Amino acid sequence: MPTMPIEKYRAFQQIDLPNRTWPSKTITKAPLWCSVDLRDGNQALIEPMGHERKLRMFRALVAMGFKEIEVGFPSASQTDFDFTRFLIEEGEIPDGVTIQVLTQAREELITRTFESIKGAKRAVVHLYNSTSTLQRRVVFGLDREGIKDIAVQGTKVVKRLVSTVPETEIVLEYSPESFTGTELDFAKDVCEAVMDVWQPTASKPMIINLPATVEMATPNIYADQIEWFARNVKWRERYLLSLHPHNDRGTGVAAAELGVMAGADRVEGTLFGNGERTGNVDVVNLALNMFTQGVDPELVIDDIDELRRTAEYCNQLPVHPRHPYAGDLVFTAFSGSHQDAIKKGFAARRSQNDVVWEVPYLPIDPEDLGRSYEAVIRVNSQSGKGGVAYLLEEDYGLHLPRKLQIEFSRVVQNFTDTTGKEVSAKDLFDMFRKEYLEARYPLEFVDHVTLPDSHATEKRTMTSHVKLYGSSKEVHGHGTGPIDAFCDSLAKELGIALEVVDYSQHAVGKGADAEAVTYVEMKGSGTATLFGVGRDRNVTVASLKAVASAANRLHAQAAGASVAAK
Amino acid sequence: MPTMPIEKYRAFQQIDLPNRTWPSKTITKAPLWCSVDLRDGNQALIEPMGHERKLRMFRALVAMGFKEIEVGFPSASQTDFDFTRFLIEEGEIPDGVTIQVLTQAREELITRTFESIKGAKRAVVHLYNSTSTLQRRVVFGLDREGIKDIAVQGTKVVKRLVSTVPETEIVLEYSPESFTGTELDFAKDVCEAVMDVWQPTASKPMIINLPATVEMATPNIYADQIEWFARNVKWRERYLLSLHPHNDRGTGVAAAELGVMAGADRVEGTLFGNGERTGNVDVVNLALNMFTQGVDPELVIDDIDELRRTAEYCNQLPVHPRHPYAGDLVFTAFSGSHQDAIKKGFAARRSQNDVVWEVPYLPIDPEDLGRSYEAVIRVNSQSGKGGVAYLLEEDYGLHLPRKLQIEFSRVVQNFTDTTGKEVSAKDLFDMFRKEYLEARYPLEFVDHVTLPDSHATEKRTMTSHVKLYGSSKEVHGHGTGPIDAFCDSLAKELGIALEVVDYSQHAVGKGADAEAVTYVEMKGSGTATLFGVGRDRNVTVASLKAVASAANRLHAQAAGASVAAK
Repeated sequence: MPTMPIEKYRAFQQIDLPNRTWPSKTITKAPLWCSVDLRDGNQALIEPMGHERKLRMFRALVAMGFKEIEVGFPSASQTDFDFTRFLIEEGEIPDGVTIQVLTQAREELITRTFESIKGAKRAVVHLYNSTSTLQRRVVFGLDREGIKDIAVQGTKVVKRLVSTVPETEIVLEYSPESFTGTELDFAKDVCEAVMDVWQPTASKPMIINLPATVEMATPNIYADQIEWFARNVKWRERYLLSLHPHNDRGTGVAAAELGVMAGADRVEGTLFGNGERTGNVDVVNLALNMFTQGVDPELVIDDIDELRRTAEYCNQLPVHPRHPYAGDLVFTAFSGSHQDAIKKGFAARRSQNDVVWEVPYLPIDPEDLGRSYEAVIRVNSQSGKGGVAYLLEEDYGLHLPRKLQIEFSRVVQNFTDTTGKEVSAKDLFDMFRKEYLEARYPLEFVDHVTLPDSHATEKRTMTSHVKLYGSSKEVHGHGTGPIDAFCDSLAKELGIALEVVDYSQHAVGKGADAEAVTYVEMKGSGTATLFGVGRDRNVTVASLKAVASAANRLHAQAAGASVAAK
Repeated sequence: MPTMPIEKYRAFQQIDLPNRTWPSKTITKAPLWCSVDLRDGNQALIEPMGHERKLRMFRALVAMGFKEIEVGFPSASQTDFDFTRFLIEEGEIPDGVTIQVLTQAREELITRTFESIKGAKRAVVHLYNSTSTLQRRVVFGLDREGIKDIAVQGTKVVKRLVSTVPETEIVLEYSPESFTGTELDFAKDVCEAVMDVWQPTASKPMIINLPATVEMATPNIYADQIEWFARNVKWRERYLLSLHPHNDRGTGVAAAELGVMAGADRVEGTLFGNGERTGNVDVVNLALNMFTQGVDPELVIDDIDELRRTAEYCNQLPVHPRHPYAGDLVFTAFSGSHQDAIKKGFAARRSQNDVVWEVPYLPIDPEDLGRSYEAVIRVNSQSGKGGVAYLLEEDYGLHLPRKLQIEFSRVVQNFTDTTGKEVSAKDLFDMFRKEYLEARYPLEFVDHVTLPDSHATEKRTMTSHVKLYGSSKEVHGHGTGPIDAFCDSLAKELGIALEVVDYSQHAVGKGADAEAVTYVEMKGSGTATLFGVGRDRNVTVASLKAVASAANRLHAQAAGASVAAK
């Protein structure tokens, strides 16, 4: 008997394409990328982005080198309408970047869409209607002709409205939505009918976008659908074939790759795969997959941690620790044999002086992404007593953030490599204390006074007493909070430029004896991030001590030695 | 100029297989599944599992129906050795389940491995050595013959030691580790040399496992490698061809699917894809992909939330909100058009009384996994003021857990569907208060006294005063903490069986006015989980009120009405 109710499901029908060519192809050029973070990604958030988050995302996408960015669904959302207007009116759209706006194929919505893009240099108007057998029957109650007519009438409206935006070059994108659930001959019929109205040319092609709105089959089937389409739909040179994969079966990246091999020119997706349900295809993953094959990704991803922080901030969703290229754990090695092989790989690379990257277990050089490889030592590999983080938590009440656990494990490894000793919880805490809590030289935080700023109501002025190389000093800074103000004073008066990347705090002990421990992840200019830790009865002082700890550790690293090694 | 340093990378070489057959195949039967959670998954954890977590994972895997489970690397880890002995000596391994143990191809390690499996009915001895060009050159400094000899000598040792475990049926598994970086003709040469020593037969086949230790190319290349191997390596009927994909390029699931189409019989992977770096292939994802095509997955996954909690507990790693089938957000719909289409799909299904699952945007019936579909209403779709969670946080200081945000949005939707009104922050808080904080009937928590238990040092006894249908009652329970003890008393004295699934707490307000708010996610027998919320100056009382709130909400749901609707 089957383990689950399989009678409810039917296999997806295969595509009749025995002479398919895509399995012998390779990807030699990046497709034209289109980000849909601000539309498809945004509409799948519990808390959609407001203006400020949208703008931060838009600027990050532009900085990466996206040439096409779907900025919203202006006819469905006032926020999207206003944001589109803002981008155009404030000159936020650089030359060479085209905004894209989504609309259903209804006259009043298309009209409103055109109002949103007035004044843009170039815009993609992305028209869609649902074409799948299921939606025709269940949602619309229309036959093929009825559904085709929606697309044709919509295209006519777009064509008519082009003259209302004389300053704007309009590119039409048409999506037979839920394409993967649509019969291929019907998808061909609808798309050709749209082209008959629009009359694209080879020099002014339109975009035909074939969404895997729901991923319904193994990725080779999607590739077959794409190759069938490219071979059977007329005027191939007059349209860009665009993919829009979702990830319901966990194979969105593969579907996009095989789809590009099958002839697609363009891919729509999002950073780290945000989007409806299981998400859109992850453009960062796709681009870096191409990069590891020596193909120019045509996107700049040289500080993936920063990109990840932007996405996490804008989407309010985490990137998983095992997410390809971006997760906390993907450049770590835990097993001794992996660590040994990697070490030998690095040594061989140095001695051969070979440009080509070849290191076991590391398919990409983490430094190309602004990251670094971490060999994680685990105490219990020797003692069976539990790992570093476990011991510090059990015996000392410290909850180290995951990235600090990884960072600190290198300190532990130095110790075990040098001494060959088994490590006790007390050894660990001593190392932690020396490396973080007692990192008080050359900068020591002593005391502070905070006052409301007379110039700006939201900001405060802070005077801090510090010691620098043993001499007392008073420094002044402004900021919304004490950490902010302290960093400001360090930068302005002592030339120590540090930016806070992440922050967490917890209590240790209870009642009158309770102390706060603060962990700050900070970044100097041009350096990788590093942690500082502070501990004090006063929560503010704990935070300021943590900043000083980070500054001293950065100083020690620049001097080529860890504080603990002294 | 390229955007990134592509001169460091080379394209993976294509496989010469023009007459490949896998792209025309479909998957019609589940492969033999082997879980490697307790070995490959476990060795990639910052805090590896101890005995208790290992046992919980092992039992969960057995309950799902895994027939082969790699339980550890006993020769490398005392914990793994002891755990293997425990399973055998305590009779934890059911009939029909085979344990598997990993070992490097070195005599002393193989000997130790055999000591660990003594007394087992059947065991897979999994022998590996690294065969890739890179590792041969950089790590081992050996030529092909030298590497082949390691495999051959190791196989001889295994063969010799079989007689030391007369009660145990030994199956040999051989992995040319880093297979994806190994020339195919050399992989063939090594595997055939191993078979020449072992002499497998069609009735007693061995396992040849071909790991994508590092995923190095698009998934079609892995499929080509597998098909090439199956066609060119001798004695095809005498070995099971096993896959072991990792996910460095985000295409591990696709690689496994195409590899099965290419002829593999068996797949090694983990729950939700835990494992080195980006993880092993996710067996749950693979199995459910097959299920949605009407193929018996040969694993029982009918309570995926519980399975996820087990994995999260044992691995101490989260499952991402967008993880296929298991993430918090994968059965949600945010956009109005999706919600409308889904609603019509459900209606059509009811009216047609058709067994086959066909609902737009939902590729699987969430109920088959013990989950439910959630239409998430967002207040800002009307008012532009920010969503439900945002308003409750800004105006009332409440930080709702994500799953509670989704649950509560249904309450809000009922309200908006009924009234058609725009919703203010005050409306929201009133709904929240009525639905959760004031859910005090029929069970009201009044007061409690906790005392150390005289029988067991770790446990405590709690006497609680409650009202049930308005009458005062005193109930008694034991537990490690107050929630535990309160649940115990409800179950034993009032017949209310509730299990705590998740728990969070935060403070609202500051100083003397501060209150604690507790959110508990609970589960009755045979019901989906639901939340209770409590608020009080006393943190313990807030938690106990939350439990009572959940109990009352469950009672109201069973009675067919939400508390708020009264």
